[in-house]
Amino acid sequence: MTTPTRIGLIGYGYWGPNLARNFHALANAQLVAVADADPKRLDEPARLYHARTHADYRELLADPTLDAVAISTPARTHFDIAREALNQGKHVLVEKPLAMSSAEARALIEIAAEKQRVLMVGHTFEHNPAVWKIRELVESRTIGEVFYVYSNRVNLGRVQRDINALWSIAPHDISILIYVLDAMPLAVSARGGTYLSDNVEDVVFVTLTFPNQVLAHVHASWLDPSKTRQMTIVGSQKMIVYDDVDAEAKLRIYDKGAYKHGAEYGEFQIKVRSGDIFIPKLDSSEPLRNECAHFVECIREGKRPRTDGENGLRVIRVLEAAQESLARNGATVRIV
Amino acid sequence: MTTPTRIGLIGYGYWGPNLARNFHALANAQLVAVADADPKRLDEPARLYHARTHADYRELLADPTLDAVAISTPARTHFDIAREALNQGKHVLVEKPLAMSSAEARALIEIAAEKQRVLMVGHTFEHNPAVWKIRELVESRTIGEVFYVYSNRVNLGRVQRDINALWSIAPHDISILIYVLDAMPLAVSARGGTYLSDNVEDVVFVTLTFPNQVLAHVHASWLDPSKTRQMTIVGSQKMIVYDDVDAEAKLRIYDKGAYKHGAEYGEFQIKVRSGDIFIPKLDSSEPLRNECAHFVECIREGKRPRTDGENGLRVIRVLEAAQESLARNGATVRIV
Amino acid sequence: MTTPTRIGLIGYGYWGPNLARNFHALANAQLVAVADADPKRLDEPARLYHARTHADYRELLADPTLDAVAISTPARTHFDIAREALNQGKHVLVEKPLAMSSAEARALIEIAAEKQRVLMVGHTFEHNPAVWKIRELVESRTIGEVFYVYSNRVNLGRVQRDINALWSIAPHDISILIYVLDAMPLAVSARGGTYLSDNVEDVVFVTLTFPNQVLAHVHASWLDPSKTRQMTIVGSQKMIVYDDVDAEAKLRIYDKGAYKHGAEYGEFQIKVRSGDIFIPKLDSSEPLRNECAHFVECIREGKRPRTDGENGLRVIRVLEAAQESLARNGATVRIV
Amino acid sequence: MTTPTRIGLIGYGYWGPNLARNFHALANAQLVAVADADPKRLDEPARLYHARTHADYRELLADPTLDAVAISTPARTHFDIAREALNQGKHVLVEKPLAMSSAEARALIEIAAEKQRVLMVGHTFEHNPAVWKIRELVESRTIGEVFYVYSNRVNLGRVQRDINALWSIAPHDISILIYVLDAMPLAVSARGGTYLSDNVEDVVFVTLTFPNQVLAHVHASWLDPSKTRQMTIVGSQKMIVYDDVDAEAKLRIYDKGAYKHGAEYGEFQIKVRSGDIFIPKLDSSEPLRNECAHFVECIREGKRPRTDGENGLRVIRVLEAAQESLARNGATVRIV
Repeated sequence: MTTPTRIGLIGYGYWGPNLARNFHALANAQLVAVADADPKRLDEPARLYHARTHADYRELLADPTLDAVAISTPARTHFDIAREALNQGKHVLVEKPLAMSSAEARALIEIAAEKQRVLMVGHTFEHNPAVWKIRELVESRTIGEVFYVYSNRVNLGRVQRDINALWSIAPHDISILIYVLDAMPLAVSARGGTYLSDNVEDVVFVTLTFPNQVLAHVHASWLDPSKTRQMTIVGSQKMIVYDDVDAEAKLRIYDKGAYKHGAEYGEFQIKVRSGDIFIPKLDSSEPLRNECAHFVECIREGKRPRTDGENGLRVIRVLEAAQESLARNGATVRIV
Repeated sequence: MTTPTRIGLIGYGYWGPNLARNFHALANAQLVAVADADPKRLDEPARLYHARTHADYRELLADPTLDAVAISTPARTHFDIAREALNQGKHVLVEKPLAMSSAEARALIEIAAEKQRVLMVGHTFEHNPAVWKIRELVESRTIGEVFYVYSNRVNLGRVQRDINALWSIAPHDISILIYVLDAMPLAVSARGGTYLSDNVEDVVFVTLTFPNQVLAHVHASWLDPSKTRQMTIVGSQKMIVYDDVDAEAKLRIYDKGAYKHGAEYGEFQIKVRSGDIFIPKLDSSEPLRNECAHFVECIREGKRPRTDGENGLRVIRVLEAAQESLARNGATVRIV
Repeated sequence: MTTPTRIGLIGYGYWGPNLARNFHALANAQLVAVADADPKRLDEPARLYHARTHADYRELLADPTLDAVAISTPARTHFDIAREALNQGKHVLVEKPLAMSSAEARALIEIAAEKQRVLMVGHTFEHNPAVWKIRELVESRTIGEVFYVYSNRVNLGRVQRDINALWSIAPHDISILIYVLDAMPLAVSARGGTYLSDNVEDVVFVTLTFPNQVLAHVHASWLDPSKTRQMTIVGSQKMIVYDDVDAEAKLRIYDKGAYKHGAEYGEFQIKVRSGDIFIPKLDSSEPLRNECAHFVECIREGKRPRTDGENGLRVIRVLEAAQESLARNGATVRIV
Repeated sequence: MTTPTRIGLIGYGYWGPNLARNFHALANAQLVAVADADPKRLDEPARLYHARTHADYRELLADPTLDAVAISTPARTHFDIAREALNQGKHVLVEKPLAMSSAEARALIEIAAEKQRVLMVGHTFEHNPAVWKIRELVESRTIGEVFYVYSNRVNLGRVQRDINALWSIAPHDISILIYVLDAMPLAVSARGGTYLSDNVEDVVFVTLTFPNQVLAHVHASWLDPSKTRQMTIVGSQKMIVYDDVDAEAKLRIYDKGAYKHGAEYGEFQIKVRSGDIFIPKLDSSEPLRNECAHFVECIREGKRPRTDGENGLRVIRVLEAAQESLARNGATVRIV
């Protein structure tokens, strides 16, 4: 097909404008319509993108000329809207988290399969060249054996009331971890603090156990003075610091390590080795642009997205287990 | 007394040279003798400080003219050496941790009381002007109510084989937390990763619950590419970032917060407030110099040290509970 | 008038897309047409903004419904295009430098006056809240007496062949200096290095003398490994560092100084004073958005722009003198 | 000889304590005596190093058992004291600048030759592994052809009254430039600002022309809010940033450049190339320790120091020309 893919956007709050801008910028797509329950938000997409606007997303879905919708509404509405959209025969991109339970996620996967429509989740970081590079360094064993990984994703930003920091922020870390380590975690424990709204954790600390004794730790918070988006991967041969807010040095690869030194039998010492630091030049494409382009490409070429429904489900299985651990005061919960 | 306080130093490995340099620099003290089991290490203190040297610390302790000893030997030897020193009538400064169990710590406290000698533990950060300032900001409620605190103390540095990262590194964080919050934690959970030596955690993640729902988190590791010593204190009115390796801005006080906005009955929103940042000028004294000077001052004036045996015991009680949690795979352990 | 101001944009190369995006985003303006001699560049504005496109800017100017044009073509064409646009009765925003000589700039000012049209130059930094704040701190003498100012504006970026780094980059520094110090420099000297193209300086070092012995220094280069946009203002009471690429701390106000200490007659010493650092919260509006909005507001309300033709002329008078100094190997040239 | 080299130190003000500490730490040297006109300063070296002390340096020089002296007195006294010391048969290390004129420097060189004594100047940075690495990268043409170099050495620190920022701070930059480029500058121009004391420039901006059109610029100031010690070397193939206050990344080597692209005849374009960044692991030895060890080694092995009298003279010839330029308002002065 040579006509642009016709896209509708549902939800024009915090994240929706970014999706709108990126779909609008694609040559093979067209942002045709935008829906938001708050009519005050609709002036902007009408003016900037000449998009048709709807206060009721059902009107948007009723348009038979739309090929696909992107959903960036509050997380608790993802499932219902995505289901309706798939049932209307639309290809669907849902912001993370894909849904609020694995049952919901599985239902969406089934409908998408049945309707033969693309179902994709907005795990942006899997469309990020820095993360691709980390996976490559891990997979090729350039960093040796992975020991542990930790991630800090904090900011004073988008405080939410309907979902906690685990469901709002940590899906990014979990999706990166699963992708980079190419494995599901076996178990998780999580603790959090609740300060601003009842029963909504503003900060969570999550520990994940991956196969081969790989440990991962995630600190997610929307109650922090500084914007930090940093992940450190410690390997036996090299260590990587991924700082997403550093314009010049997103990835630092340290030729550092510690190793046993000494007689095979008897006494040994641990020696520390410290070498050069290498900052690779990365593809400078915008991850969200890549994500939107990938969604359109999958629709047009009948491909399965990199962050498909199964990918979204895997993250939700971890979130569910972590949520159970939060409720049980940090008890270790196996991921089934 | 007007003659200098005569000091002996036991242990001249990693930390001992720093103690030697600082005691040597004090006008009212004299570094008289140094002991280390490794004779190769004794050339330096002999040359730099004209100190008498001993391969056997018992010889050093036998010198009746010594007023006090500082102990910076491997942690597992702290108790025995400190006990002997006290029994010989010496005032004692022990590097952290004070001992390897609360029973040992209590025994040392008792002997010191009986012998009427100063017993002090090297919790350096309680002698640090930046930490004093944080306590002042917390105590005066300048930052409002404390919500949570987290600390990262990581480096590729002094990998140990006899004690894990919890006992080696985290005593600093725990002593700062107790001091700054002016409270003991109620419970602790800890998880760790073991990579270099069997049964020795190279990295630990520790969660502590303090009274008033204050949550604290400590990440300690000697297997990390970058030296980080950072603690963040999030309050309801202001937030503090304490970065010990930033020469210009050790303390940043952010006039930032989040608060409920809206009708008393019914719907409310969380609003975020972001204001100025303030970097206070701090006393530039070296914390370890302060610590050494304080030890000497307590000896000379019969004062109780700020970081006395009880202080050391409190930290050990937390370490013991955290160690138990490590052994029980992160289970929450109450601190008795 | 309640209909949007109709804007045409001439030049869609390096900077034009930023102007297009910002005019498009304004509620009271409409980006109607875009012209560029390179037709390949016109697809994007057609798609993103539904703008009419022209390979010949004269066609764009011929549209009687256009109220105003923004000109972001190569600097050597600014004068001709701006003159034609004014003669066609359009309000005109010209990217810096306004023209290539003070004679040209004066001619544009005259035509604009005669035609009663707004003439504005794109000195973006005078629409920047950080620069407003600096002016306020200088004007109120909060920093005491200004001693000297220096500025580094370097990058590996937009290497040009038709104008040198002085005319391409330094207009920003010069416009900030005149605005912040509220004075014209008395004299200038400049030296440069020519590496990539014959007779085009890739780097310049410019020294400016302002009234009251205030010295200013500007280093501008497009041949540098790191993006730096930093200006330091040293006063007798306080010092300011303005780092435009620091997201968290654009402005640091240091309570630092040096002062004479000692007997009125005879010996004195210079003492150094070092106090707190203060990072004020700044209005987070985008400077280019402010600039575009200001242009439209001046058109709609018949106001004189902050960066009017006279403002553009002042900067060109300094550039001319600096260019003469470059040609005379750094000789001091008085600004007439 | 197997006995330690016996060292006397003259001047225990700002820099002397660093020399004392480093000589004291050397195994093959002994700090025997310290002289300072201010007797209050002599307590510390007596206590720390058991050094004999003298209020009159002539007494120190009279000691026939001293092999060598290090001179860290005010710059204007360097010549007289160094001359006396050489005449007394001592080997001499003089802090920079070696003297206050090239005539004085030449006289010292002559006396040293006649007396067959080592004469060395304290250009610390030529004993710095980072600077060695830069020279290696320049010499091997790894960075291609050198285009230009600029250096910022500023701080709010040691404000002086007897010599200006040119003579106090810039000797470091000039010595590094001559060493790294392996060439003398051909001409210099300098401008400065005088704020705190009459006729003493607190800040200078110096432009140097080296052979092959290499341009260098030095900004030196003791009136600046932040400590900066940064030098950037721009080559045709790579660029280096040397940041002496960055503990982790002293040297960053950017694989960046700009080059001509296009037809041999007719039009060409300048393209920009941006690649990886490489941070080499450097020898972590302390430069001043290297300097002191090198001085002792030259004495003991009869070697000519890397920073010998001729080296000191070269820097002074540049300083003299720069001083003349300052006096002539920035006129270009050829270096003879």
